[in-house]
Amino acid sequence: MKEFDLIKNIKSRYGLKSLGDDCAVLPNGAENDLLMTADLLIEGIDFELNWTTAEFIGHKALAVSLSDIAAMGGRPTWAMLSLGIPVDLWNSSFVNEFYEGWHSLAGKEGVELVGGDISRSPDKLVIDSIVCGTVSAGKAILRSGAKPGHSIFVSGMLGGAAGGLKLLLNEAHGLPSNSPDIVLKQLHPEPQLRLGNQLCTNSLAAAMIDLSDGLSSDLHHLIEASGVGAELDLDSLPIHSGLSQFFDKESCRDMALNGGEDFELLFTCQAERAHEAEQLGCKRIGSIMAGPNIIVSAKGEVIESRGFRHF
Amino acid sequence: MKEFDLIKNIKSRYGLKSLGDDCAVLPNGAENDLLMTADLLIEGIDFELNWTTAEFIGHKALAVSLSDIAAMGGRPTWAMLSLGIPVDLWNSSFVNEFYEGWHSLAGKEGVELVGGDISRSPDKLVIDSIVCGTVSAGKAILRSGAKPGHSIFVSGMLGGAAGGLKLLLNEAHGLPSNSPDIVLKQLHPEPQLRLGNQLCTNSLAAAMIDLSDGLSSDLHHLIEASGVGAELDLDSLPIHSGLSQFFDKESCRDMALNGGEDFELLFTCQAERAHEAEQLGCKRIGSIMAGPNIIVSAKGEVIESRGFRHF
Repeated sequence: MKEFDLIKNIKSRYGLKSLGDDCAVLPNGAENDLLMTADLLIEGIDFELNWTTAEFIGHKALAVSLSDIAAMGGRPTWAMLSLGIPVDLWNSSFVNEFYEGWHSLAGKEGVELVGGDISRSPDKLVIDSIVCGTVSAGKAILRSGAKPGHSIFVSGMLGGAAGGLKLLLNEAHGLPSNSPDIVLKQLHPEPQLRLGNQLCTNSLAAAMIDLSDGLSSDLHHLIEASGVGAELDLDSLPIHSGLSQFFDKESCRDMALNGGEDFELLFTCQAERAHEAEQLGCKRIGSIMAGPNIIVSAKGEVIESRGFRHF
Repeated sequence: MKEFDLIKNIKSRYGLKSLGDDCAVLPNGAENDLLMTADLLIEGIDFELNWTTAEFIGHKALAVSLSDIAAMGGRPTWAMLSLGIPVDLWNSSFVNEFYEGWHSLAGKEGVELVGGDISRSPDKLVIDSIVCGTVSAGKAILRSGAKPGHSIFVSGMLGGAAGGLKLLLNEAHGLPSNSPDIVLKQLHPEPQLRLGNQLCTNSLAAAMIDLSDGLSSDLHHLIEASGVGAELDLDSLPIHSGLSQFFDKESCRDMALNGGEDFELLFTCQAERAHEAEQLGCKRIGSIMAGPNIIVSAKGEVIESRGFRHF
């Protein structure tokens, strides 16, 4: 069973309606809806301590949740942190540096830490990052809003975080001060809050998701929620400019298509408003099609979902 | 450094006002405040799989967070679950049974699962239970409301969960169908939501906390937040009736005073309204005193904080 199947099962068995988007969207008075998201990061699965710094881990823990708020078009407000800490880390400067990294981003984005939990952990560092946000009532951008004829856009460049991960896996060294851009893209991602909010306030994005598992997987999530298909122009993918120095052309394209953790935004908009998305620096990479929930290339090849899965 | 000291440091360093109660109390419109809490439970630290069942773990994960909502006088609304799952558990019926236990309690208390995260975990099961609730604006019962002269009350019986834990640790066997009450108190706690909400709506409790670390520790947290002291009548502690079958008198009293996880409510109220608390089935165990943040017995001995600590 894949984790996505489990979520579908739980959702249908218990009649849960709010599961399945980047954030839960919760009714909260006449003006605003409340957004809520959680991201669990476990040492040895989601990160390694010898790749990065405590401050970078703190930054990334918050960044991945802020990216979920961005993907709904919202603004972040409050956060909680649950930390499971091995004794040796507790007895070091790790926790203080972790909070420094977390708060540096929180301060910039106006997020207040309001709670959480601290537990001892037998051996691995465990972080659960919980963020709440706000969005005008009824205006949250869901995965389910894509319609045939929409253009598909992404922000930024793709594949950088996956390339950075490959470098870290191959070299197995600590973070050097002169790390390539793609390593920083992996270890210190920047959530696209301003863009997400713009796409919401001007009602430009009809459906949106953040790129956490990888484009091929995340686009599959979006078209499945919307009940549509997609055609992807593989030649138009904005491949991260830092990749070609380390990888061949085919690997670069594979990382742009299937690599996770870029934390860019993937969204659809009406074709006649495509120029507005371009003006915001986003790149058109395909179109939404009527029909089954599959992605095809311009040549008609089926593109499978090959992004990151826990199970 | 104790975990409570870390929280104090973080709170003062970053100017965080909402940290330090059972739940964060967040402004949320004219009528209600939003409550939010998180509880991280890690296998090998907070529970062992061979002591209990998947359904009981699901129940307890939600129960401990509902107890935090109860301690503020609130009503629970939404929840999220972040699960870090080892591969062998993923490939068993564990996750389905866990959700059964969770939803059985959630259904009873009107809590909706709205989100969370699922991650693979290298070896230990990790659960972060996040619950939101609501309380009339400005009416949440904080730890800081205790005043000299108040009577101190507890709900239920004390020490049962600690006694149950001792039996589990000594016998190291699975959960038998005829487990003693105190084992069920440890593995299947019942949050005191109805009582907590009553103590709030009739403005009876002035300060409140749930008994998770143990009476001596949790009363210390309460008097510290209120800037007062306390006198505890040790002979009046309502010792769990299931303990004497297994433990001597001194151990029973020690577990009632210092044992964690009873998830009963500890609160203060004006002395002239003590009869109202008694009518709700609560037991008076002492008084709030002016002066330093210490607990003394009726004989004047200082009672140290000996409850559960992670660090």
